[in-house]
Amino acid sequence: MKVNGFQAAAIAAGLRYQNRLDLGLIAADEPVAAAGVFTANLVKAAPVLWSREKIALGRARAILVNSGQANACTGEKGLLTAAASARAVARALGCLEDEVLLASTGVIGQEVNLTALEKAVPALATGLEIDGLDQVARAMMTTDTRPKTAEATGYIDGRPFKVAGLAKGAGMIAPNMATMLGFILTDAAADPGFLGRALKRAADASFNRITIDGDTSTNDCLLLLASGRAGHAPIVQENTPAAAEFEKVLARVAGDLARMLVADGEGATKLVAVKVRGAATEAQARTAAMTVANSPLVKTAIFGQDANWGRIMMALGRSGAEFDPDRVDVSVNDAPLVRSGQAAGDEADAARVMRMAEFDLHIDLNAGPSAYEVLTCDFSIDYVKINADYRS
Amino acid sequence: MKVNGFQAAAIAAGLRYQNRLDLGLIAADEPVAAAGVFTANLVKAAPVLWSREKIALGRARAILVNSGQANACTGEKGLLTAAASARAVARALGCLEDEVLLASTGVIGQEVNLTALEKAVPALATGLEIDGLDQVARAMMTTDTRPKTAEATGYIDGRPFKVAGLAKGAGMIAPNMATMLGFILTDAAADPGFLGRALKRAADASFNRITIDGDTSTNDCLLLLASGRAGHAPIVQENTPAAAEFEKVLARVAGDLARMLVADGEGATKLVAVKVRGAATEAQARTAAMTVANSPLVKTAIFGQDANWGRIMMALGRSGAEFDPDRVDVSVNDAPLVRSGQAAGDEADAARVMRMAEFDLHIDLNAGPSAYEVLTCDFSIDYVKINADYRS
Repeated sequence: MKVNGFQAAAIAAGLRYQNRLDLGLIAADEPVAAAGVFTANLVKAAPVLWSREKIALGRARAILVNSGQANACTGEKGLLTAAASARAVARALGCLEDEVLLASTGVIGQEVNLTALEKAVPALATGLEIDGLDQVARAMMTTDTRPKTAEATGYIDGRPFKVAGLAKGAGMIAPNMATMLGFILTDAAADPGFLGRALKRAADASFNRITIDGDTSTNDCLLLLASGRAGHAPIVQENTPAAAEFEKVLARVAGDLARMLVADGEGATKLVAVKVRGAATEAQARTAAMTVANSPLVKTAIFGQDANWGRIMMALGRSGAEFDPDRVDVSVNDAPLVRSGQAAGDEADAARVMRMAEFDLHIDLNAGPSAYEVLTCDFSIDYVKINADYRS
Repeated sequence: MKVNGFQAAAIAAGLRYQNRLDLGLIAADEPVAAAGVFTANLVKAAPVLWSREKIALGRARAILVNSGQANACTGEKGLLTAAASARAVARALGCLEDEVLLASTGVIGQEVNLTALEKAVPALATGLEIDGLDQVARAMMTTDTRPKTAEATGYIDGRPFKVAGLAKGAGMIAPNMATMLGFILTDAAADPGFLGRALKRAADASFNRITIDGDTSTNDCLLLLASGRAGHAPIVQENTPAAAEFEKVLARVAGDLARMLVADGEGATKLVAVKVRGAATEAQARTAAMTVANSPLVKTAIFGQDANWGRIMMALGRSGAEFDPDRVDVSVNDAPLVRSGQAAGDEADAARVMRMAEFDLHIDLNAGPSAYEVLTCDFSIDYVKINADYRS
């Protein structure tokens, strides 16, 4: 995966473990238009605070990402570590430290291992190459079982442009800015203001509609850099063909990455799209979908491939959405489970659907015109195993 | 366990499984003062709808409870089944069917097995005995590993009175009326209006402060019957010594039962009191405590006996409570984990506390005067196992 105007590299810096890629650098050939969205968690990691401040300038040269330490809840010292990390990159690339964005993932409460980081950064800069993005996707993995990348192409003014993204997820994933870390690069040309709005919309339609465990990380961030190398006139505002085309391609990449995050959720064996319709308002549709998607009892039933629809009714009932329980319809793919609030269909049909790795859970509240869709996964024995001894 | 004025019995009616107590009856010697609180879930089981309507009369003669089928999401037919169940009891006891309260626990979507129930009720009535309450506590178990009963005694006007309770819980437990089923009996004398208010207060301070999985059942109910046999003047209003004494004893029984429910939560290996203080308002203290108490990542860390305090900070940050992350203090019992938002103390001390079966998690937000306490348990491999194949 590559994008005109960007190079990347990753290295085993030994931040926490030896001989494991844990530090990645993405560098634009020159400062480029940049935008970002960040965690809604009140507790924000030092790299989030750093990047949120710097992205306000609308331009960036590089993203440094590490796994192993989250540099969250590390106080003044964590902020100094962040600044020193940016300085090391700026020195190696010959740019301003304000042009370096930072992202960290790993254990909360631990500062980034600055000694190891500073030692590794020069080699990282020397190793930058056009094909390096896939290595960065590996370097930012924690409990992810595989790297996650997606790309798509579009045309503006007859010229092709590309959008490519990389993300990591696995645990502590929930709406309010979802992915732990996501970086999207494009050679399209656009104004930072437009990029920011487009990124927000793309995140709302993708990362903000997935949940693995309902826990929102302190380190979530999604960054978008645009090199402009595609050569078309910069996109400045919405309601133009170029803007629509760019947002379409961006949405596809963001959607693909979000889907990969859920499919690779910690311990996940199933990918389920919870599709609520017939809600009184979109907010109620969202509440209903999210409550079902996060219910431990629904998620363990999905793991057990058990068409236990009573738990879905229970979750809908406690969600706060307004509806008449006697009008609710539920199905998995085309197999009905509930019709007008009561058991319907042949449970064997539903069980057959639930044995598949991916399926849709359709819920019609029959209480209004609004719909919302959330991607979730199941709650497995491995989720508990992974999280009971994550740090060991 | 026994209470003057009440008899009880349980039987293996074969509602779902054979040779397993699954039907219980508690009968007052005559109609007595009664009060109840019911699930806040929008989806309410037929027996909840029935009992909520009948309890409005303020008097009841009996409680019939079954396990095996929840009789929720069963529509008109479920309501007819509920009425027929009450009628069977009324016939056997020679009372009005409006004086019979109902409670069911089991699989949602299945009506109570009325044929088996009607066949068993006469034998149940014949078997009523003063010592039967412990058997009823057994008959209403589902995934509970042990029956749960509690009793306490007080004095009003120099005369002793008793409050005795039985409850079942295990899964689908969360605030907004918590226990799946709880019955409290007393020989104290009181007006139904007072009983209702006292019960609400007792529930708010006990069952509504526990959580196992954040899922609120469709069948939750807590009933209180008062036979008046203790012989003192009936309690009619608050702000009297008798009312205060009664509520103190009631609170103790409700608190003991609530604690037992969490300790026997599905798959639970730890009982943890999450004690938040220093919040701006009590509502914020509650939100913070509940978010920590329900966080899958916090609960799996507790299962893993891992002092992973970063997850606690994460949960506090996403709770919606307002505070300065740099002022938060966290400890387990007397072992500090976080001081002013950063790592503190010796993690080995904290790990020693977390190896205990019960401990307190103290959180001081240092943002105001308000406090709230929630009892929770851990999230174990067995929770997933139990709920992935509950119905098989």
